[in-house]
Amino acid sequence: MRAVDIIVRKRDGAELSAEEIEFFIQGYVKGAIPDYQAAAWAMAIYFQGMTDAEATALTLAILHSGEQMNPHALFPPGSKVVDKHSTGGVGDKTTLALAPLVASLGLPVGKLSGRGLGFSGGTIDKLESIPGFQVEMSSEQFMRQLREIGLVVGGQTAELAPADGKLYALRDVTGTVPVLPLIASSIMSKKLAAGADAIVLDVKVGHGAFMHNLDDATHLARLMVEIGRNAGRQMAAVVSAMDQPLGQAVGNALELKEAIDTLHDRGPADFTRLVIVLAGEMLRLGGRPGTREELQALARVQLANGRAWERFRQFVAAQGGDVAVVDDPDLLPAAPLVEPALAPGSGYVAELRADQVGQISVALGGGRQKKGDAIDYAVGVVLEAKVGDAVEAGQPLCWIHAPDAARLAEARRRLLLSAYRISENPPLQPALIHKIIE
Amino acid sequence: MRAVDIIVRKRDGAELSAEEIEFFIQGYVKGAIPDYQAAAWAMAIYFQGMTDAEATALTLAILHSGEQMNPHALFPPGSKVVDKHSTGGVGDKTTLALAPLVASLGLPVGKLSGRGLGFSGGTIDKLESIPGFQVEMSSEQFMRQLREIGLVVGGQTAELAPADGKLYALRDVTGTVPVLPLIASSIMSKKLAAGADAIVLDVKVGHGAFMHNLDDATHLARLMVEIGRNAGRQMAAVVSAMDQPLGQAVGNALELKEAIDTLHDRGPADFTRLVIVLAGEMLRLGGRPGTREELQALARVQLANGRAWERFRQFVAAQGGDVAVVDDPDLLPAAPLVEPALAPGSGYVAELRADQVGQISVALGGGRQKKGDAIDYAVGVVLEAKVGDAVEAGQPLCWIHAPDAARLAEARRRLLLSAYRISENPPLQPALIHKIIE
Repeated sequence: MRAVDIIVRKRDGAELSAEEIEFFIQGYVKGAIPDYQAAAWAMAIYFQGMTDAEATALTLAILHSGEQMNPHALFPPGSKVVDKHSTGGVGDKTTLALAPLVASLGLPVGKLSGRGLGFSGGTIDKLESIPGFQVEMSSEQFMRQLREIGLVVGGQTAELAPADGKLYALRDVTGTVPVLPLIASSIMSKKLAAGADAIVLDVKVGHGAFMHNLDDATHLARLMVEIGRNAGRQMAAVVSAMDQPLGQAVGNALELKEAIDTLHDRGPADFTRLVIVLAGEMLRLGGRPGTREELQALARVQLANGRAWERFRQFVAAQGGDVAVVDDPDLLPAAPLVEPALAPGSGYVAELRADQVGQISVALGGGRQKKGDAIDYAVGVVLEAKVGDAVEAGQPLCWIHAPDAARLAEARRRLLLSAYRISENPPLQPALIHKIIE
Repeated sequence: MRAVDIIVRKRDGAELSAEEIEFFIQGYVKGAIPDYQAAAWAMAIYFQGMTDAEATALTLAILHSGEQMNPHALFPPGSKVVDKHSTGGVGDKTTLALAPLVASLGLPVGKLSGRGLGFSGGTIDKLESIPGFQVEMSSEQFMRQLREIGLVVGGQTAELAPADGKLYALRDVTGTVPVLPLIASSIMSKKLAAGADAIVLDVKVGHGAFMHNLDDATHLARLMVEIGRNAGRQMAAVVSAMDQPLGQAVGNALELKEAIDTLHDRGPADFTRLVIVLAGEMLRLGGRPGTREELQALARVQLANGRAWERFRQFVAAQGGDVAVVDDPDLLPAAPLVEPALAPGSGYVAELRADQVGQISVALGGGRQKKGDAIDYAVGVVLEAKVGDAVEAGQPLCWIHAPDAARLAEARRRLLLSAYRISENPPLQPALIHKIIE
């Protein structure tokens, strides 16, 4: 088998065999197949696509490039470990509320999460806004905490699916990022390596997401569900809106605080709704009896009765975080300047661009332009008015948490110019959940 | 300007500017743009193509990566230096007869030629079957010989269009060889660097050529003519048949001998015809008065009157070759075994696959599987019967010049099995010259 022949077959539209794909990926990881052949292959896939069978084989080949976790072994036979993954968006603090919620219902959640890059935030950064919180841990520590309190969030490690890291870095500089089977295999290889029995995907669609239209997002969701099933996992995918930010808070400590509010059952309606829907799917795949509506109601009760919050406190303590700070979020890092952006006229919020808000938060210091950049946990934006809300001239549209006056002024200018659009007539209320794919 | 943005623009079907293409090629040659980005870019070009303007800019960028020759400066104002290039085929010894022919008519020819690779032979190898013949020379030597006898053939040097060598090596292992604008720019950058005022292209089409159908060959020819014109050169392209080998001889010394026969006006009809047609185009672009037919007649006289032959002898002597050997080609390297392959039945030669004959000659030792392989000048095949000829059972179809009995037997087996096809009815006589593109 020669790499160039595999490239030519894909270029000419053939379906590659699992053996060919495995040969290519293992050769690439070992360095026997150089970057330039992988780059040409990725570009050929951009144009010719992959069948579900090829995408599955690619995912498994990437999975086989590294170690696999087996959290399932920690629990009694018949019990299920359920994982969740979001394709990323602005204001997406879902894991922070969802994971303790389902853990409090007896469903163990052991998650590996990433840091933010560009305008998408990362769960790890949000958790690290809690003083003392640790995400670097050995796999023994990870497994022990998962067994003991049923909830752990670690940083992604290089041992799982190392081919993915190498391929992603290459795709980033060769124009081959937006390729559905490569995106799907990248996500799914890491999810499969983490070893859950069932996986619930939150596929975002809109200005603030990687997928900009519902067709593409649906294709990606279906492809990932298919890959997971082919690999023997139970799968569901929720396709949810990311045109405007999720919830009200954008920024690390601000989002953590909003998650805490939500665990106290006083979070924003849209964010709470998404958490409940995803919890319902996780419980369903986890084998809990009941209809989708009954399982969602069960989850909602868990926010109201304080058990989800209690599990969150245990989790923070177990990972070295200062529980006093989550008990009193006013102790979280706070920005020196907190000022509003005022509505320039009366009307309705017709649009609130998630990508713009995300970029404004990055510019305030809350995100990274490139890997390794330091971030300011305190800064960000809290949205007072969202799409469909009526506003009056001079009313605060949002509050800007800024490190200095210059960046405050720039954030205000961009929020009013590029993020918010006010119109005379009320817009159609946007859907939050587009579809659930089983 | 960033390489990845240029890749993405081409991937998305945009027309790149000359500045972008120049930036990419100069960056690639300097090592600032790595192989993996060039590979992704080449694959994007495979799928999205290039406009004539882009292909011209690419050719000029490759040209600018190295030195340029200026043979024009050697001759009086108003005189023209005319070059010729063949896209390569089996039995294509055209340069050996054509170059001395037009030189003998006062049109200076300074050519850089390549060695053979795969089933295509190379002019340099054929010349090197003459004992003592030298192709490595300084550019001063090249220019001096061109001025003194109006005819010189040197080996390709790394100083001209170095980006082409680097790009070609990459394309070879990334599935991006068969891409018209990349093929055209590779050929034309080297031709432009050699500095002729006018260029006649011989674009081969058929089993034994790089282009397998007339449409592709015509596209390539038109594109190269366009690129040359855009770069300020006079251009013409002859699209000629390469389904069966050209002439009768395939193999280095055997082809040299056939070229010598042709210079004595006793060469095979098809080969002589092609030489005359190409000579006519070179004379026309070189500014000689007369119609195409008159110029071809002028060339034909030059074979009959011995002047082309006389120029060939001077040329061999000037490059250190043993003139006694070209005067008596029986002194050329000769194979120990010369035996026929006999027609297994009576009928007509319906097909004679040039690619098969070329591969058989390589297997006899006459060509290279990979760069740097040693070759045996003596071996090859001389075709007695060509397409359309009537043959009787037991009559020699061809003569095999072999180094040993085993390879003789294998060559005979393959010639009868895969190269020749005999049918009961006479086939249509194939065209030699498909078209001339001005």
